[in-house]
Amino acid sequence: MHSYEQLRRFSEQVFLQMGCPPDHAALAAEVLLSADLRGIDSHGVARLSGYVRLWEAGRINATPNIQVVHETPSTGVIDGDGGLGLVVGPKAMQLAIEKSRQVGSGWVSVRHSNHFGIAGWHAMQALQHDMIGMAMTNASPLVAPTFAIERLLGTNPIAVAIPAGEQPPFVADMATTTAANGKLEILQRKGEPAPVGWLQDKEGHSTTDPQGVAKGGALLPLGGDREHGSHKGYCLGAVVDIFSAVLSGANYGPWVPPFVSFLSPPANPVGQGIGHFFGAMRVDAFRPAEEFKRHMDQWIVTFRSAKTADPTQRVLIPGDPERESERIRSEQGIELLPPVEKDLQQLGDKFGINL
Amino acid sequence: MHSYEQLRRFSEQVFLQMGCPPDHAALAAEVLLSADLRGIDSHGVARLSGYVRLWEAGRINATPNIQVVHETPSTGVIDGDGGLGLVVGPKAMQLAIEKSRQVGSGWVSVRHSNHFGIAGWHAMQALQHDMIGMAMTNASPLVAPTFAIERLLGTNPIAVAIPAGEQPPFVADMATTTAANGKLEILQRKGEPAPVGWLQDKEGHSTTDPQGVAKGGALLPLGGDREHGSHKGYCLGAVVDIFSAVLSGANYGPWVPPFVSFLSPPANPVGQGIGHFFGAMRVDAFRPAEEFKRHMDQWIVTFRSAKTADPTQRVLIPGDPERESERIRSEQGIELLPPVEKDLQQLGDKFGINL
Repeated sequence: MHSYEQLRRFSEQVFLQMGCPPDHAALAAEVLLSADLRGIDSHGVARLSGYVRLWEAGRINATPNIQVVHETPSTGVIDGDGGLGLVVGPKAMQLAIEKSRQVGSGWVSVRHSNHFGIAGWHAMQALQHDMIGMAMTNASPLVAPTFAIERLLGTNPIAVAIPAGEQPPFVADMATTTAANGKLEILQRKGEPAPVGWLQDKEGHSTTDPQGVAKGGALLPLGGDREHGSHKGYCLGAVVDIFSAVLSGANYGPWVPPFVSFLSPPANPVGQGIGHFFGAMRVDAFRPAEEFKRHMDQWIVTFRSAKTADPTQRVLIPGDPERESERIRSEQGIELLPPVEKDLQQLGDKFGINL
Repeated sequence: MHSYEQLRRFSEQVFLQMGCPPDHAALAAEVLLSADLRGIDSHGVARLSGYVRLWEAGRINATPNIQVVHETPSTGVIDGDGGLGLVVGPKAMQLAIEKSRQVGSGWVSVRHSNHFGIAGWHAMQALQHDMIGMAMTNASPLVAPTFAIERLLGTNPIAVAIPAGEQPPFVADMATTTAANGKLEILQRKGEPAPVGWLQDKEGHSTTDPQGVAKGGALLPLGGDREHGSHKGYCLGAVVDIFSAVLSGANYGPWVPPFVSFLSPPANPVGQGIGHFFGAMRVDAFRPAEEFKRHMDQWIVTFRSAKTADPTQRVLIPGDPERESERIRSEQGIELLPPVEKDLQQLGDKFGINL
């Protein structure tokens, strides 16, 4: 068990050792750790050594020159110069927020970036400004579009954060697949079968083998199969890919570079790095903020108090499970799985940092 | 069998008989008929008598004063004054397009409107301007959020239209439920069971009874159940509801008024009418349009040529089935189901119009 602060400081020091400037290292550690705090263990310190290996392979630039390469009053494109997505993402979201302040909304597409942690963190940056925040990113291809047996899309998450008044904010953060890859990794560790509708084998048949993707299969778009709307999950993943990469000039579809250093990026790239897309809309660009928040409170209370089939269950508001995790882990600390613990120890040894 | 032009003119005359100004009647007929042309029969002339009955019940205003009630350079709110969504929607989308021309993007939330036909038509208005278009709307509550047995959301569709170069555009238009209500109506007419994951009965148990919703059950969010990601479909439907109604001041959640005249709108409304949300983003507000379109072409060709499990099937690009329907029906005409044919005959008799 480690405290949040202990893991945050460790990560910050690792980023410093990679040569990140101090403000970048602190920001990257904060974004990375927000995943552990919010219970999305697959996207937190468990990935720290992955960033290090990509940096060692020359595929992450620790001192990027992050630039706005094109803009209008409400839109912009940022070139991340191969930097950590954990740093490039927040800069791009800040630009969206600034534009929203100026003209009501701001929309920023990003190229030449890297894994940006959890999408929810970025979207939530808008909340403190009474803005609605949005964040999406493309990712290494693991997902087969409906009918296909090739992997052409990433799990391409969408996050939307909406402020409320007395109620906590609405924070949706979802992969556009039936199940996120992290959920599958849990089943792999336990050796348990995956539910039907999560993945297919390399011939395109439904499989419950949690190793199915590693064996040449694919994750399935939200919906699972055509009859259950997988073409809609495919549409959503495609929109994320296009907004993040075709708008910005990043790699899209099968050209998105893998997050792991042992796989080479595809030859003949169609763009630079991976892509993200951020949005911010000032609530009072539509109606007075207090009025909006009062109605959001009513929306939330209405949904939360809906009758349920099982009286021990409640209808959740998007963000509820993550808030509960954050409450518990801020107080009690963060328990790491043994392989993650070992991974961090090795990183500590390499850089001479105590965990 | 009727030609497109025959049905369009008939609908236009019905709207004129309702007292719509000529430009509104022509526009409403065009938007309505785009559904029949594109093969979404549930949203076309089959609904014409429904609009008439709502007008007779005093719930549609044929001569609305459609007003921009609030705006910033990139956002706006429109009050539809109880007009046809088929007219209010296009006016709002035009405002989004105009703002996009000025400052790169435009986002318009609409209150006090009514059913706006197919979301795809509205999103596609952006294409001719080399813009990405978006349209969404809330709708009468038929959908239970994950775990709930109450109907709190509509099928709340999302449409995204993205221009390409030599390839046809990408046009996604999807209900945020596993299956749209129109698909269920087809099974009801045929007396066939619905697939598991489409709906639940009034106790919240999975059912295949296509009359399940009429018997107090509910449609299920995209995903079907928690294990298959229904909380994500619920998130998407919720975002549509909030963007369309909480931002604008329309009714949301269980307060959205029903489209049918024989059901009264809920007492104590929380807003006015139903809500929509529209967006437009100029492609060249991000990168040169020709460059974007060239990459969209490559995206489309890559996905369309992906290997499939069944060699007789191809990976579809969103919009393909509707384009195929439009091609066939423009040439061969539109076949109406007998009850729809009868419905239109009765409308014709009422207003003295020949079908």
